[in-house]
Amino acid sequence: MALQDPTPGALDPVALAQALIRCPSVTPADEGALDVLGRALEGIGFTCQRLRFEAEGTPPVDNLYARIGTEGPVFCYAGHTDVVPVGDAAAWSIDPFAAEIHDGVLYGRGAVDMKSSIASFAAAAQAFIAKRDSLPGSIVLLITGDEEGPAINGTKKVLDWMAARGETIDACVVGEPTNPTKLGEMVKIGRRGSLTGRLTVYGAQGHVAYPHLADNPIHRLVRMLAPLSKTYIDEGSDYFQPSSVQVTTIDVGNLANNVVPAQAKAVFNIRFNDLWTSAKLEAWLRQAFDEGLGTDGGRYELACSTSGESFLTEPGWFSDLLQDAVEKVTGRRPELSTTGGTSDARFIRAVAPVAEFGLVGQTMHKVDERVAVEDIRKLAEIYETVLTAFFARNSART
Amino acid sequence: MALQDPTPGALDPVALAQALIRCPSVTPADEGALDVLGRALEGIGFTCQRLRFEAEGTPPVDNLYARIGTEGPVFCYAGHTDVVPVGDAAAWSIDPFAAEIHDGVLYGRGAVDMKSSIASFAAAAQAFIAKRDSLPGSIVLLITGDEEGPAINGTKKVLDWMAARGETIDACVVGEPTNPTKLGEMVKIGRRGSLTGRLTVYGAQGHVAYPHLADNPIHRLVRMLAPLSKTYIDEGSDYFQPSSVQVTTIDVGNLANNVVPAQAKAVFNIRFNDLWTSAKLEAWLRQAFDEGLGTDGGRYELACSTSGESFLTEPGWFSDLLQDAVEKVTGRRPELSTTGGTSDARFIRAVAPVAEFGLVGQTMHKVDERVAVEDIRKLAEIYETVLTAFFARNSART
Repeated sequence: MALQDPTPGALDPVALAQALIRCPSVTPADEGALDVLGRALEGIGFTCQRLRFEAEGTPPVDNLYARIGTEGPVFCYAGHTDVVPVGDAAAWSIDPFAAEIHDGVLYGRGAVDMKSSIASFAAAAQAFIAKRDSLPGSIVLLITGDEEGPAINGTKKVLDWMAARGETIDACVVGEPTNPTKLGEMVKIGRRGSLTGRLTVYGAQGHVAYPHLADNPIHRLVRMLAPLSKTYIDEGSDYFQPSSVQVTTIDVGNLANNVVPAQAKAVFNIRFNDLWTSAKLEAWLRQAFDEGLGTDGGRYELACSTSGESFLTEPGWFSDLLQDAVEKVTGRRPELSTTGGTSDARFIRAVAPVAEFGLVGQTMHKVDERVAVEDIRKLAEIYETVLTAFFARNSART
Repeated sequence: MALQDPTPGALDPVALAQALIRCPSVTPADEGALDVLGRALEGIGFTCQRLRFEAEGTPPVDNLYARIGTEGPVFCYAGHTDVVPVGDAAAWSIDPFAAEIHDGVLYGRGAVDMKSSIASFAAAAQAFIAKRDSLPGSIVLLITGDEEGPAINGTKKVLDWMAARGETIDACVVGEPTNPTKLGEMVKIGRRGSLTGRLTVYGAQGHVAYPHLADNPIHRLVRMLAPLSKTYIDEGSDYFQPSSVQVTTIDVGNLANNVVPAQAKAVFNIRFNDLWTSAKLEAWLRQAFDEGLGTDGGRYELACSTSGESFLTEPGWFSDLLQDAVEKVTGRRPELSTTGGTSDARFIRAVAPVAEFGLVGQTMHKVDERVAVEDIRKLAEIYETVLTAFFARNSART
């Protein structure tokens, strides 16, 4: 298609990152962040739609769907403008929403997770578009205000909305901070799944001096948790580290040291790789708990909730393309990894190959979150290189 | 000695039990209970002394020391007038401090633990004295108001006070309820010791998604508690049941299911027989915990407190004498036992042979605590038979 409204000058990713940080969009608040982004994207030719979703028990959340182009192939960038709370405000060296630059470093909540990445992609898109008379496909931005919160009214619902309209994408980069210490170290091609289990073991209350008349649920709980108390439950798979269990709390709350309590509760979280599904994991847990419970009575309840299954975009053309682009700009060939916490990429994997690449994550969610200004510009360069390679490959194929 | 002031009529143990129950002496309150008892004992010739003890951090407690006679041998009855709280007052069928009798059953807090037993002994002493021109020794009552509480300002301090005055005793019956279901079933000749341990395990806080950066103290705690989660830690000894462990609480209080906590706490109680001392037990615990802790770092703190070592009055003349007396009145030969919770007998064993015999314990510490009126009268008969046999034996020997 022909670009109808080419912009005169380049879009400065650092100025856009600052403008976004100055909107204190602590999840689920927006505080104008999506407006700032929408105006910038409309200025370079994107058509923007605001999508507001809500669900019972959750706050309504605004999302932004921006598209330029009408044909395929479609490249998608996914991200979020909501940020985590500032934490201990007094501990910050710089006002977390002032977006000040000191010695070449931009400070602020969202500086790496992930307002600067969004700005870098907008600048990359502008530069990519400005160099062409016509766009060899479409570029889409899927930006949510509900990634750091419950993630119910965000990416997942935008994808449903797109599916209902027949809109498809051919590949997606998620702009989460993926590099441990230096830009260019790591591309994430999958994530482990996450299952939280809440275990309650029931016994019979009684006096400690008469053990035959009581039935101690803590003793059962300790036996039942034994197989979960070794951190790793497999040896990992081709692209994944071992699945890990962490018992996060045990609470009985019995203040009387001469009384055997009637029940004991534990909560645990399992980060599982592609050797498991949540259903397989729950079946394994119930078998282990049944064995630990023993045959001398007693009962337990187990409630499992899964915030995401494990997913993987197997190494191939898309990861090659990303690695090449990163290496070209930074001189480093990034490792392909599946480590870390969950991200919205888990929803996108169902519709297209997806990988994550963004800034350096060291200060994310911490006091004095910050990013080198140079990294923002380099990331824009990387994203532009990705767009160039993606459309070169996919236009050639179609 | 000659009885200086023989009472004209018999002392009714049921009426005295009712008068005692009507004093709501919920530990550490006295509410006139010791006055009621003191007047009754003075009425039959005892000399009474009130001993008030206090210690920092504990309420002051009144005790009653009553004695008749100046020579040896000295028979001692030990008991307490304080009672446990009524619990759910609305659940009682009868006002817990009204001491009403319905269908031959006396209701009230303290009915079996142990105001009626004290009344039975007072009646037994009166009957024993009334039948004699002179007393072949001395009878002592050691009554505390601090048995159900911290037991710091009670029996232990009265014994110290007696020791300081050179007063000794030759044998002691403690009037705790010892019979599981019927009067005459059980005499207690010892008790297990009781040790409470407070275990804190330290680790390193972290995110569940990065297990290699965290160090989960709950996993260590589960390993460390494994050897304590089997209820019995020995097979019992000649006169004792097996020593038992009950983990009474585990508390972490971590509300975030994506965070590995920094510490975890557990409390446990061990009732131990004469195969152990508290020092031996603590050494065993530390060795087991050191092993469970493992060699991959981590540390723990263990604080042990012992409320009583195990003690035993080995079967012999005193237990024979008690068993004979019980059998003579009830037709049942009581079992010699060392089961159950702690009692003040643990303090008395240091100075004389001690055994416990009282009413039926089924309703002790419960709603609708109650005793058959017939049992109170039979217990008075048993105690009188004990006094007769004790002085017959010991006067013959001296």
